[in-house]
Amino acid sequence: MYFASDNSGPVPQEVLDALAEANSGYAMGYGDDPLTAEVQTRIREIFEAPQAAVYLVATGTAANVLGLATVTQPWQTIFCTPVAHIHQDECNAPEFYTGGAKLTLVGDGDRMTPETLRAAIEAEGNRGVHGPQRGCVSLTSVTECGTVYGLDELHALAAVAKGYGLPVHQDGARFANALVALDCSPAEMTWKAGVDVLSFGGTKNGLMGAEAVVLFDPDRAQEFEYRRKRGGHLFSKHRYLSAQMAAYLTDDLWLRLARLANERAAQLAQGLRDCGVDFAFEPAANMVFAQLTRATHKRLQDAGAIYHLWEGTQEGNDPDEFLTGRLVCDWSLPEQDVTRFLTVLKG
Amino acid sequence: MYFASDNSGPVPQEVLDALAEANSGYAMGYGDDPLTAEVQTRIREIFEAPQAAVYLVATGTAANVLGLATVTQPWQTIFCTPVAHIHQDECNAPEFYTGGAKLTLVGDGDRMTPETLRAAIEAEGNRGVHGPQRGCVSLTSVTECGTVYGLDELHALAAVAKGYGLPVHQDGARFANALVALDCSPAEMTWKAGVDVLSFGGTKNGLMGAEAVVLFDPDRAQEFEYRRKRGGHLFSKHRYLSAQMAAYLTDDLWLRLARLANERAAQLAQGLRDCGVDFAFEPAANMVFAQLTRATHKRLQDAGAIYHLWEGTQEGNDPDEFLTGRLVCDWSLPEQDVTRFLTVLKG
Amino acid sequence: MYFASDNSGPVPQEVLDALAEANSGYAMGYGDDPLTAEVQTRIREIFEAPQAAVYLVATGTAANVLGLATVTQPWQTIFCTPVAHIHQDECNAPEFYTGGAKLTLVGDGDRMTPETLRAAIEAEGNRGVHGPQRGCVSLTSVTECGTVYGLDELHALAAVAKGYGLPVHQDGARFANALVALDCSPAEMTWKAGVDVLSFGGTKNGLMGAEAVVLFDPDRAQEFEYRRKRGGHLFSKHRYLSAQMAAYLTDDLWLRLARLANERAAQLAQGLRDCGVDFAFEPAANMVFAQLTRATHKRLQDAGAIYHLWEGTQEGNDPDEFLTGRLVCDWSLPEQDVTRFLTVLKG
Amino acid sequence: MYFASDNSGPVPQEVLDALAEANSGYAMGYGDDPLTAEVQTRIREIFEAPQAAVYLVATGTAANVLGLATVTQPWQTIFCTPVAHIHQDECNAPEFYTGGAKLTLVGDGDRMTPETLRAAIEAEGNRGVHGPQRGCVSLTSVTECGTVYGLDELHALAAVAKGYGLPVHQDGARFANALVALDCSPAEMTWKAGVDVLSFGGTKNGLMGAEAVVLFDPDRAQEFEYRRKRGGHLFSKHRYLSAQMAAYLTDDLWLRLARLANERAAQLAQGLRDCGVDFAFEPAANMVFAQLTRATHKRLQDAGAIYHLWEGTQEGNDPDEFLTGRLVCDWSLPEQDVTRFLTVLKG
Repeated sequence: MYFASDNSGPVPQEVLDALAEANSGYAMGYGDDPLTAEVQTRIREIFEAPQAAVYLVATGTAANVLGLATVTQPWQTIFCTPVAHIHQDECNAPEFYTGGAKLTLVGDGDRMTPETLRAAIEAEGNRGVHGPQRGCVSLTSVTECGTVYGLDELHALAAVAKGYGLPVHQDGARFANALVALDCSPAEMTWKAGVDVLSFGGTKNGLMGAEAVVLFDPDRAQEFEYRRKRGGHLFSKHRYLSAQMAAYLTDDLWLRLARLANERAAQLAQGLRDCGVDFAFEPAANMVFAQLTRATHKRLQDAGAIYHLWEGTQEGNDPDEFLTGRLVCDWSLPEQDVTRFLTVLKG
Repeated sequence: MYFASDNSGPVPQEVLDALAEANSGYAMGYGDDPLTAEVQTRIREIFEAPQAAVYLVATGTAANVLGLATVTQPWQTIFCTPVAHIHQDECNAPEFYTGGAKLTLVGDGDRMTPETLRAAIEAEGNRGVHGPQRGCVSLTSVTECGTVYGLDELHALAAVAKGYGLPVHQDGARFANALVALDCSPAEMTWKAGVDVLSFGGTKNGLMGAEAVVLFDPDRAQEFEYRRKRGGHLFSKHRYLSAQMAAYLTDDLWLRLARLANERAAQLAQGLRDCGVDFAFEPAANMVFAQLTRATHKRLQDAGAIYHLWEGTQEGNDPDEFLTGRLVCDWSLPEQDVTRFLTVLKG
Repeated sequence: MYFASDNSGPVPQEVLDALAEANSGYAMGYGDDPLTAEVQTRIREIFEAPQAAVYLVATGTAANVLGLATVTQPWQTIFCTPVAHIHQDECNAPEFYTGGAKLTLVGDGDRMTPETLRAAIEAEGNRGVHGPQRGCVSLTSVTECGTVYGLDELHALAAVAKGYGLPVHQDGARFANALVALDCSPAEMTWKAGVDVLSFGGTKNGLMGAEAVVLFDPDRAQEFEYRRKRGGHLFSKHRYLSAQMAAYLTDDLWLRLARLANERAAQLAQGLRDCGVDFAFEPAANMVFAQLTRATHKRLQDAGAIYHLWEGTQEGNDPDEFLTGRLVCDWSLPEQDVTRFLTVLKG
Repeated sequence: MYFASDNSGPVPQEVLDALAEANSGYAMGYGDDPLTAEVQTRIREIFEAPQAAVYLVATGTAANVLGLATVTQPWQTIFCTPVAHIHQDECNAPEFYTGGAKLTLVGDGDRMTPETLRAAIEAEGNRGVHGPQRGCVSLTSVTECGTVYGLDELHALAAVAKGYGLPVHQDGARFANALVALDCSPAEMTWKAGVDVLSFGGTKNGLMGAEAVVLFDPDRAQEFEYRRKRGGHLFSKHRYLSAQMAAYLTDDLWLRLARLANERAAQLAQGLRDCGVDFAFEPAANMVFAQLTRATHKRLQDAGAIYHLWEGTQEGNDPDEFLTGRLVCDWSLPEQDVTRFLTVLKG
């Protein structure tokens, strides 16, 4: 019963097969191989963005910070939520890669709204040369709290950003999970809504370690290449990144994996709801934030459920105190694990 | 007849098998899995360095610059040769990761000597607070020119560095090739000679993308971990890096691969020598720098030989001008390709 | 009636005289002159800190960020208030000089409390290698809102920091104004309370441009010197910085100037209080944040009073809306300007 | 007999007078004062460059690195000579301010030639994304060796740079000394020759600490302002920088000071020449590099001459070994000191 993360499961057989298939003879290094070109073309097609520049890297942090650095100046501040991965979980990588830009926290929850975003932008950038200058807006969907921005929300937020002339970055570490939740097209969820730079995640959705950065405006593509190289993120044997991504995009594997993960989470959420459990955030993709008592958490974990608490610790004394458990479902989660979790819960 | 690089060949079946074997169930992310611990232990054993801190990353540039940054202050200068990968081929990644350190070029050839190193160190660091301060010495072996530092040379160079209190970094992108060439122990080639930080390469010797950084003095290990994370080089699904490295170290695969590569190069060199060809650098590992006329290069390349010129271009008019061809052999190079190359050469 | 800033007034004649006096013959550059040594000794005496390392720079931002960078690692976060100069008014200079550290905002007012500081520290640094690591605590006194930390408050805050092993930085751009407000010794307000690094301001209190950085623990003094040089902040004709600071410290000029400024502010505050005006922050040094109606602001400004609004703008329509005016008194402010301001206010 | 540096002498009375004159009443901070505007206009006139953006800073290093950073990307390399101040004497400030750019050393002497510059550029930037990319060309005149680029040389070098699309930076720490040596107009020595960014020095030629950066193409002026602020180089009481520069430019004071310094050096050089002394570099401005025996150096220094050896040390045993003495004349050097120096020399 592993609900701790979606970066801990295995990869589907298709990915292993693709690696084996790619493992034949010589291939030019550093992305100058045919498989990489094929993947780039495929991503452009999927996003209906024939002009887009597409690059592969191996980690989500690399994708985020290389993309951000490409559209951010060192004297600017990036607008994101307090729970954004780029703020909480990248050990100052955005600050490092941008050469010292700041992050301004928008609102106090899982998502920004046009109002909180506008207020945050208004509060910055009005001190002349003294203060940080307004920089890009970075949205994450699926958010770190398992919620998903609706298309109208994305449009509205991007419109606020564009009103100030600010570029929009999307952290799509769980892009596929958000996409199948919204049931829209990749283009609708990105450039049609106003997104300029996308981290298109693969690792949390079944790859060993492969992410694409999509620059819908290719103007700064050359600069991205230099940044990737000097960050140490340009793979010499690039075909093994490309093979993963090629398998991911073949026969909609990426969508099938995301649907599996989302379905497990939906089952879990429904079961919890049936038991009268409340959620800290309304489940929308592959994560469920369930409010359970300390005693219940203990019972579940004693029975073998593995997951983290989002807030609070197991160390308290009060068995009846409610603590939020963060339950993440990956594509490989067996359905019976969800069933068993719910059975244990019901006692 | 592919002699262009050792980053373009396939990986051995053992590596694919190891990935498949590791691909089962859940494993804690970010290196907190048993396979990673096993690999770290194994590397400590191989290097007879029980205290060493060992970390995995996916690219040689990442290994180099994270290691360098850990032992270099931004106001220092790193001593390396003019052909060092960190100088020529990392798009200023050392400068980026160190926060602005400089590189001082030592000598004008493939290797530094105690004399050229001492002279370079003496010429720096005598301008008080105004000039760059003396920083670490970075050696590469196998060098970019296919030569290998002898153990006595390593000792002598490290002694010079230590005489000034400077740490020693070794770029071991082709560590295994150097090791089998020297026929010594990993410890002898590193900490016993005075090396403090090692980039222990795997990618050029048969892995998809996996390198280890070995800090023989673990004092700054914690700092390394932060640097790796904020560089975007900490893999969430870390087991797939570890699986590669585990396969590499099992049953001496790494040494067998290096011996294959070196043997091909030795055959090639012998054949060239037999034809009276001169070398720009004395071949010692898996690279041969052969001086051939422009006409000969053309004939070889027309026949399907793929390789780069080290100096000069094919665009000149003089067919009799000698140009240095850089011929790199990887573990997978078929013996018959060497034979064929020599056959074409002989006309 | 100039109340816009304490960086806009003239310097006292003593400073001009000191520059003229220092302007004789040759003096070794870069701080190797006798006057600089004298100033360093004098500051150590004033702070009863014979071991302290003392350096001069020309701007408050330079003093702050060089001091911060000396005690902060790039993967750490600095704790400060939302109104801190280092956060709001240095265009990301702390992020630049630290190599990408983050700033974590403590509380929502002019000052941090032990509780808000502890809460902020607890909320950071518990995500292992993923999140920013806990870094130094940066206090400002006089705060940007004209309030002053009491000695007991300083002790309590530093105790919280020390409890987590974190160094304490003090932005003392208005150090003298705080000191005379507290009527304590410089040592009591700094190292005796737990401050490790101090920006000892001179510019806002009557100098042309001279600040001292005091490292009470001189362990990282050498590093500071490299940082100052590579920041471009080491003056060749250093004697002219030292001459300013020497004049400042002679015959308690610095305290006399601060008392003048504080007295003007006290007169102003008393006059406002007598008129029933409320304050956004309780005036304690040389700044008064007065809540006046838009109509009153207009009347004052039409009469020649120059100052900024702290919040809100003059552009609104409602003449009766209260807006906070930020009234800063410098040492040179004529008493009659205060009187006139109050006269205009009373109508 | 002080010949050690031109950063050690006093400032002329005009500068003190200007400071006193500026020291009246309130003036808007951060350069928003009338005197600053006046100085900016004056510099544009002097350079016949009405569009140029002009900024003041307090140190030569700040001027150089802020200017360089404005026209250099972090993945580029700056072309300069091995003796360039930016390479030898700024403790990696260019690397810091550019975010990690590299410096490529051109030639091996005091000056670059079109041939050595072209060769250096050709040798860089041909490794695709792997190597450093070609960045700006930074020329210094007066060079660190006291020589001066002729106008034709400047034109030829800038033409090489422009042929590769590279911007040209000029370190003019001793701009006035070069200008009076060439007897040309400021425009001829800068933008008419192809210079894009100039560090217009004042400190070495009689100011306390004031330099101008002139961006002949103002396109990146806004960026410069952010860089200056976040570098901590924006002075709040900016009028005191402007007052220095205003005095400098009034009644050709800057040219008069430079002529004084150059004349002293010419007298010194002539006297040395009359004694049969050789020069390491042909004296052209205010510095003389005289080759004298160790015994002679000792005699001169025993008699009170203060200067540095350019190469070698006094510690050797051979009294007849020739060592190069670096003799720098500033505007305030008394003529009798030159006479006395020569008298001592003649024994």
